[in-house]
Amino acid sequence: MPEHGGNLDLAMQRFGGKLRDWIDLSTGINRNPYPVGELPETVWGALPSKSALNALHQAAQQAYGTTAPILATNGAQAAIQLLPHLCARGNARILGPTYNEYTAVFSAAGWDVAEVSDLEALAGADIAILANPNNPDGKRYEPKQLLELLPKVGQLVVDESFVDATPELSLASNAGREGLLILRSFGKFFGLAGLRLGFAIGSDADVSALAAMAGPWPVSGPAIAIGERALRDREWAKATSARLVRDAQRLDAQVLRLGWTLVGGTALFRLYETGDAHAAQEKLARARIWSRVFPYHRGRLRLGLPGNEAEWARLSAALTG
Amino acid sequence: MPEHGGNLDLAMQRFGGKLRDWIDLSTGINRNPYPVGELPETVWGALPSKSALNALHQAAQQAYGTTAPILATNGAQAAIQLLPHLCARGNARILGPTYNEYTAVFSAAGWDVAEVSDLEALAGADIAILANPNNPDGKRYEPKQLLELLPKVGQLVVDESFVDATPELSLASNAGREGLLILRSFGKFFGLAGLRLGFAIGSDADVSALAAMAGPWPVSGPAIAIGERALRDREWAKATSARLVRDAQRLDAQVLRLGWTLVGGTALFRLYETGDAHAAQEKLARARIWSRVFPYHRGRLRLGLPGNEAEWARLSAALTG
Repeated sequence: MPEHGGNLDLAMQRFGGKLRDWIDLSTGINRNPYPVGELPETVWGALPSKSALNALHQAAQQAYGTTAPILATNGAQAAIQLLPHLCARGNARILGPTYNEYTAVFSAAGWDVAEVSDLEALAGADIAILANPNNPDGKRYEPKQLLELLPKVGQLVVDESFVDATPELSLASNAGREGLLILRSFGKFFGLAGLRLGFAIGSDADVSALAAMAGPWPVSGPAIAIGERALRDREWAKATSARLVRDAQRLDAQVLRLGWTLVGGTALFRLYETGDAHAAQEKLARARIWSRVFPYHRGRLRLGLPGNEAEWARLSAALTG
Repeated sequence: MPEHGGNLDLAMQRFGGKLRDWIDLSTGINRNPYPVGELPETVWGALPSKSALNALHQAAQQAYGTTAPILATNGAQAAIQLLPHLCARGNARILGPTYNEYTAVFSAAGWDVAEVSDLEALAGADIAILANPNNPDGKRYEPKQLLELLPKVGQLVVDESFVDATPELSLASNAGREGLLILRSFGKFFGLAGLRLGFAIGSDADVSALAAMAGPWPVSGPAIAIGERALRDREWAKATSARLVRDAQRLDAQVLRLGWTLVGGTALFRLYETGDAHAAQEKLARARIWSRVFPYHRGRLRLGLPGNEAEWARLSAALTG
């Protein structure tokens, strides 16, 4: 299986320390999570009801600015796992480098998979996949560009896992058109990746097919209760977007002083050209700060954002030390 | 999609009341759940780590008495959803009537599905499916009978969702043999169905194939943390088994006085012949107690067990009122 950020097991194996010693900046998960709060007992004990799931779906539609059919999934990853079974096997083109599960999942399901490096090269694919903004380089595509691509492919999957702080990039308001499927992540922006919650938004036919494959209880009771509450809290989202944008600039300013350059990023992570990413990762790891390197580019290091002043201070000391 | 127990939306639509007014006896979920307790913040915030998932797998192997490969899934249902993709499409035979998702899931995936009424008729199937003990009638099969069937089918799936209180029926200690796949439910016996946790136990090839389809984060952080703790607590399991067996007898004694007869059951639910199940369901529903009827048998009513003395008193009054 592909390697991922957030794998502190590996950090501890290589550099020691205990889980609580580490600051995990190897992912794009917000380190200031939405408060979980108190949960009623039925959330744990009872099977999630259809009405509770519908309420979550409505909250997500409102938050994402869409009236199109939507399905909650066990993380955006669970929707990705189902994609190869959504239409007849054919050729999948993936705009890369990007989140590495797409190639893995389609290859495992026997699809003919090609990674392409520009948007135009997706045309002609049975299924075309891209992330907007992209992970790890933050590359952005205007909705207009993507809507122009739509009729040129069998199915267009747009992974919007990192779009929350830049909603103007989202195609959610265009969802419902035939052949367009949008994936959203809940856990990254809301800082609750352990909850496993994501959404697929698309045409009635696609969302119905995904729902049939996901089964009657696609997400947990806690995911439904916390997800609905968090998605309805637009004040928290607004304040969090603003804070993340400020913090991303703060990180850039600190890091650029070292001579690293910014490749790109989103409000949840930044990708830097460091010259030698493994050396940079090791330097940070000695201070128990975990970061992400990529097999296909030896200079590039991805960093998430510290969650509080103590973490900023540790990062600053580690970078300059 | 098939109808299920636990659907209080339907109960409220038909009979009124609010969620908190109802006692849900329409499922086989233990109403005295394992205590959730305090959860560390990382359980919500971080991606579930491989080491945490491994620890859960080990706890489940110990609890279920097996050393065979095991995979945690988003409820036993998530494993069921994957079954049609585990081997080449062919003929599925299901020993029924049983949990209705098997027929639905295999039919939707384009399999040739037949429901058969005795164990011998499963022979010759590409995939043979049965529940032990069976839901809803509690029918039991000895491990020896099932091991004799194993070489006569391509793949044998044994759904042990209700076996916890009768571990002598479980095939878990035989898991690992080629062609044998066992499904376990965590949420029913531990009373935490909202958590979405189940397990598939089988050969290395089958469990690896299911793991690839389920993806890198098959279950949530809370499911891992609570699941591991609960599965290691064998004292709780022992006391709970004993309590459930006593309570099942107590329910039988109350109900048989009405002239109903026991069809069968497990320690988590009982199936009664009432003469007119819809009338019986309505009588209980007027007292805000929800029960389960089945489309294929007009006389049969399934009841779960009350969780405390107040619930027993309400049930007793509703039955005799």
